[in-house]
Amino acid sequence: MTNSSAKNGLKPEDEFLSGQRLLVIAPHADDESFGCAGTMARIKNLGGEVYCLCCSVGDLKHYDGKDGIVTAGTREQEFKNVMDYLKVDDWEILYRDEQTHLRLDTIPRRELIALFERDAKLALDRLQPTMLAIPVSSYNQDHEAVFRAAWTAARPGVRGVKAFQPIVIGYDNTSFFWSLEHEKFHPNFYIDISDFLDQKLKALSMHQSQMRDTLHHSSLQNVDYIARARGREISVEAAEAYMTFRQVL
Amino acid sequence: MTNSSAKNGLKPEDEFLSGQRLLVIAPHADDESFGCAGTMARIKNLGGEVYCLCCSVGDLKHYDGKDGIVTAGTREQEFKNVMDYLKVDDWEILYRDEQTHLRLDTIPRRELIALFERDAKLALDRLQPTMLAIPVSSYNQDHEAVFRAAWTAARPGVRGVKAFQPIVIGYDNTSFFWSLEHEKFHPNFYIDISDFLDQKLKALSMHQSQMRDTLHHSSLQNVDYIARARGREISVEAAEAYMTFRQVL
Amino acid sequence: MTNSSAKNGLKPEDEFLSGQRLLVIAPHADDESFGCAGTMARIKNLGGEVYCLCCSVGDLKHYDGKDGIVTAGTREQEFKNVMDYLKVDDWEILYRDEQTHLRLDTIPRRELIALFERDAKLALDRLQPTMLAIPVSSYNQDHEAVFRAAWTAARPGVRGVKAFQPIVIGYDNTSFFWSLEHEKFHPNFYIDISDFLDQKLKALSMHQSQMRDTLHHSSLQNVDYIARARGREISVEAAEAYMTFRQVL
Amino acid sequence: MTNSSAKNGLKPEDEFLSGQRLLVIAPHADDESFGCAGTMARIKNLGGEVYCLCCSVGDLKHYDGKDGIVTAGTREQEFKNVMDYLKVDDWEILYRDEQTHLRLDTIPRRELIALFERDAKLALDRLQPTMLAIPVSSYNQDHEAVFRAAWTAARPGVRGVKAFQPIVIGYDNTSFFWSLEHEKFHPNFYIDISDFLDQKLKALSMHQSQMRDTLHHSSLQNVDYIARARGREISVEAAEAYMTFRQVL
Amino acid sequence: MTNSSAKNGLKPEDEFLSGQRLLVIAPHADDESFGCAGTMARIKNLGGEVYCLCCSVGDLKHYDGKDGIVTAGTREQEFKNVMDYLKVDDWEILYRDEQTHLRLDTIPRRELIALFERDAKLALDRLQPTMLAIPVSSYNQDHEAVFRAAWTAARPGVRGVKAFQPIVIGYDNTSFFWSLEHEKFHPNFYIDISDFLDQKLKALSMHQSQMRDTLHHSSLQNVDYIARARGREISVEAAEAYMTFRQVL
Amino acid sequence: MTNSSAKNGLKPEDEFLSGQRLLVIAPHADDESFGCAGTMARIKNLGGEVYCLCCSVGDLKHYDGKDGIVTAGTREQEFKNVMDYLKVDDWEILYRDEQTHLRLDTIPRRELIALFERDAKLALDRLQPTMLAIPVSSYNQDHEAVFRAAWTAARPGVRGVKAFQPIVIGYDNTSFFWSLEHEKFHPNFYIDISDFLDQKLKALSMHQSQMRDTLHHSSLQNVDYIARARGREISVEAAEAYMTFRQVL
Repeated sequence: MTNSSAKNGLKPEDEFLSGQRLLVIAPHADDESFGCAGTMARIKNLGGEVYCLCCSVGDLKHYDGKDGIVTAGTREQEFKNVMDYLKVDDWEILYRDEQTHLRLDTIPRRELIALFERDAKLALDRLQPTMLAIPVSSYNQDHEAVFRAAWTAARPGVRGVKAFQPIVIGYDNTSFFWSLEHEKFHPNFYIDISDFLDQKLKALSMHQSQMRDTLHHSSLQNVDYIARARGREISVEAAEAYMTFRQVL
Repeated sequence: MTNSSAKNGLKPEDEFLSGQRLLVIAPHADDESFGCAGTMARIKNLGGEVYCLCCSVGDLKHYDGKDGIVTAGTREQEFKNVMDYLKVDDWEILYRDEQTHLRLDTIPRRELIALFERDAKLALDRLQPTMLAIPVSSYNQDHEAVFRAAWTAARPGVRGVKAFQPIVIGYDNTSFFWSLEHEKFHPNFYIDISDFLDQKLKALSMHQSQMRDTLHHSSLQNVDYIARARGREISVEAAEAYMTFRQVL
Repeated sequence: MTNSSAKNGLKPEDEFLSGQRLLVIAPHADDESFGCAGTMARIKNLGGEVYCLCCSVGDLKHYDGKDGIVTAGTREQEFKNVMDYLKVDDWEILYRDEQTHLRLDTIPRRELIALFERDAKLALDRLQPTMLAIPVSSYNQDHEAVFRAAWTAARPGVRGVKAFQPIVIGYDNTSFFWSLEHEKFHPNFYIDISDFLDQKLKALSMHQSQMRDTLHHSSLQNVDYIARARGREISVEAAEAYMTFRQVL
Repeated sequence: MTNSSAKNGLKPEDEFLSGQRLLVIAPHADDESFGCAGTMARIKNLGGEVYCLCCSVGDLKHYDGKDGIVTAGTREQEFKNVMDYLKVDDWEILYRDEQTHLRLDTIPRRELIALFERDAKLALDRLQPTMLAIPVSSYNQDHEAVFRAAWTAARPGVRGVKAFQPIVIGYDNTSFFWSLEHEKFHPNFYIDISDFLDQKLKALSMHQSQMRDTLHHSSLQNVDYIARARGREISVEAAEAYMTFRQVL
Repeated sequence: MTNSSAKNGLKPEDEFLSGQRLLVIAPHADDESFGCAGTMARIKNLGGEVYCLCCSVGDLKHYDGKDGIVTAGTREQEFKNVMDYLKVDDWEILYRDEQTHLRLDTIPRRELIALFERDAKLALDRLQPTMLAIPVSSYNQDHEAVFRAAWTAARPGVRGVKAFQPIVIGYDNTSFFWSLEHEKFHPNFYIDISDFLDQKLKALSMHQSQMRDTLHHSSLQNVDYIARARGREISVEAAEAYMTFRQVL
Repeated sequence: MTNSSAKNGLKPEDEFLSGQRLLVIAPHADDESFGCAGTMARIKNLGGEVYCLCCSVGDLKHYDGKDGIVTAGTREQEFKNVMDYLKVDDWEILYRDEQTHLRLDTIPRRELIALFERDAKLALDRLQPTMLAIPVSSYNQDHEAVFRAAWTAARPGVRGVKAFQPIVIGYDNTSFFWSLEHEKFHPNFYIDISDFLDQKLKALSMHQSQMRDTLHHSSLQNVDYIARARGREISVEAAEAYMTFRQVL
């Protein structure tokens, strides 16, 4: 089969991934791990480049059955640890103030777009990623705002004038069963992470302040179930699932 | 909380389920277990009535990595065993010939509708179910044909003239990730089967000829993952998920 | 038929409704009557509990062919009268200032969510409703904002940590023919209000400042036509129609 | 206002309708009246042309609470009476045999298309209608088959080679609440029939064998409610509602 | 053919267009030309009335491969020239400040609605257009905001109390391939501009500051390709395509 | 930029395409050229493999303004010439009889599936393609039937038991503007054919019997317009557009 005899010994899909420069845009610290940690680990393992832009960390009182408030500082430290663990090439946090956290819907969209396009350290114009992974709209207002702004930032432009990303995909989250009807997540793009599921779960668990009861949809246990069920959608042990927004070959 | 103090000691949802007469329409033997076995077990446990109408069994050569052909006789015996195990009140198989199996799309829809409405032993007019669980359209042509015919059979009529089902729901299947975009399964109706997951998996496993490799989406292992993930959509250990087509209170 | 022989003399659906604690969230005073007044009257009649949280009343100049401005005070008095008439157990108005009225789209969504979840007198955490009726997105920016925030507030959490509503439904409005394509109202959950249509129309008419010309879609005459047409969708004289967002049994 | 001062004394919309040659394609006798009788009456009143092509009449046993079978002959006579009453310019029935009735889904679509395009007496190539009203897909298999075939027949071709209909619209039916999610009827094209509602109801009532209990969705009473509610979607007393499939100006 | 023998020598569609008073609402200067310049030219040529309300011009730095900033003044002058060239009866610009430009999503929707309904010089209540062309939601936040507000402003009201537009349509843009799935543009209403394509392209080219590289989707070259491809959807040389939101006859 | 420095001198996307074994399934001779001829030419040029399975040729009377009937023999010869011109590795025609042509909707779906899966010379099990391009549902009943059957044939199975295609995509056609609302074509996967547009148009023109008037949507002229407009969706001179149904990396 053509598929298993690439010229340099890598399978074609590994070859393809090894040449990517991936940028993951995450509304909050931990979204990158829910959606993409296995993919990030695999691409790094293959020699590709991975970057992560987190929009907001902030002091937060959770419905988590625990006392007290998680501070932005804690979130940032956890995020940094995960970035180190996944060997991410570079990362960035856009907003650290409590006022902005969970209020990204109140920032003029143009400002978020400008950050994504040109002004952030990891902006598309600067980083020139070949693969862009963005969150999908959800019940969470920050996810919706980041999705909308990232979508606009990824609109195509003429090469040489505006950065162009050949692959733009939306990543998974355990909460999508509670999305609006017209915003449901229907994946069609899968990354086989059978060899990287442990790293995905480890990365996620390092966002220690965000860990929930096992019955919660975002519990580590459920992320494991879903990764294995996503895998079985393509007949492998574990996968991360995405929606294709654009791919150019 | 109102929810936990029903008059006869049952929780309101248990009380409600205990009064139901459920009819499950299954395209093929095993679909009822993929979708509804936990619900069937729970309703029987609560004292309600459960019936199952299977449309077709037939000789079949599977992509199952095994040799030989599964006969209609084997499928029927397995189905009978499952019905016994789940203590179903009555069951029926409509077509047993190899010619019809996987060719339900070639039967005039009117004939399937007539069977569901009036002519089958468990037809709606005869059984007068209060809760009707039907399959949802999928890539499988028989599922699509049965869904369409059952949908038409369940159209509302004037009470006293035509049987009316206060609850009509569509049940889950592990294959829906490969449904057409406009036919995706978005559940909004859940039955808590935390105490009945073992029975669901046992029932399914009794369709021995249908068991697949663990990496297949319809493997026992994946049904377990999905039941637990569905459970976490409502914060319980395991659930069966449905789409509401009609509910009247 | 199982359906007509419940243990305590009530029909199963009456029994079920009698055990509910319903909370209706209304963007403006009168939306609760357009969508749910018959249901509210029926549940109260059966011995259940009903609460109503109105988001905003404000001074308003209508396209109503009449002179002058309707004041927030008038709206509140009318709303209070309706609540009394329907024997609602408790009610609340969140915003009374003219600045907020019809500008709920400018409040950070997080603030509306916090009110619905924890901070309002009738917040979900405090009231612990078993049935939650929320508005559906419409061309009206306040309806859209309240829908989005209520949707987020109703996301599932682990019982004991965050209030969980077993039934979450969206209610009808006469304006939905002018909703965006992807926001159309497709009801699948009906409450038979044949015996309560008079009370629904009476309640609505008590919002006297909101009464429109008979040719307007929100006229009392049209609400009557639509209730009777909705009834005929389930073959009864009159019904209120809802979309199921979540039901757990 | 421009709208009220057309050159020949007619309002622009009356002027426009007066120049139309309307063809209504009906799956069964009575569908034309449910959907279009008011429009047909109005266009005839204005001096335009109206034609009606009925696909099938056949012997039928109804869920109508009455004894016996309605024969194809009865259906045809009723249809003829309606055509006379509405002063239709010409009409045609394609299938009269009991075998075809309610089995249009088993005719190769190509055959229905050929009838609609070239072979029927009122085929598009022969009649050259300027306005084509077709049924919309519903739970009824004949409606679905006729819709699909009429849709294909109405595909655009080069003028002079294939007949071209500047207006193609889908008409209403009282059963659409029970259509599949992706086939729901969302009207955007309205014909004001305030002065023709009586004729619509009269025409419908002449399909005497099809009259149902007042609580049925297709009862005369409900058609009246819905025509008045549709009217209020555009602020007139009564209207017929359509979906625009194509309009060329 | 009825279609070609109108009373005053005009074809019925020309007769119909000649009686229209068209208002085009454009988010930014140039949107009216991308979507409607051919239609505007044709209606003026037939003796009808055309008006254009532009929401915002502002200083803007483009991804255009050119240096410098385009000023609001330049945009306004270009817009004025286009209005003159198309012989538009009257036009208006709502916002000229740099702060508002590309930030229409931060204006309370109620304010935009009020401008469209009553307060602008060309407001619906004042102008009483018979045909209203509005932008369709896109990745651009201003287009989304204007669409939503215009949609609400065009909701039907009782004639004599609130202005009513018999035709409300959404117009085309070359960027819609990059719209969200549920906001895709599916045209069903076409204006034949075969004789007006040159004027459309000329008008567009007069927005000189907005001209892009030929490979950009909004280049003059691509507008030409798309107008000709749209034309072939109805078998004419060139067309402008619209979505019908409401039409009343 | 990572994207331009692949190890063996090819750009990553060229490298990726060069390793593919593409199978195109076409309902009729010419569909492969409308949708994929540029892609086929490019993959062959890069050293990959390309195969084409055509479902049906048959005697046909066209609405083409020409006299007489095109025979199956003519269609086959033209198809063969195109296959030769595009240097396709192998091709196959499934049905040649006039009875089947345009009647694929009457073949039991199971039979088409069996041909695609195992029984045709180029069946998935035999050919083991890495990239599968299938038609998308359209107003044409054969396209719908082939799409449905190919979709089912491409359902995932366990590797080693059933052939698995890492890439499954749906290809473009000039007729999709006349598809049903829920079947519209929204491309997200593009192949740059700027250097292969001439070959695409040449291949298409070799289906000489299918050439239409320049105003027809399927004219050579319009295919050129659309290829260039599709190109501008990704800022290149010409492209073929696809919908991603599955991609696994």
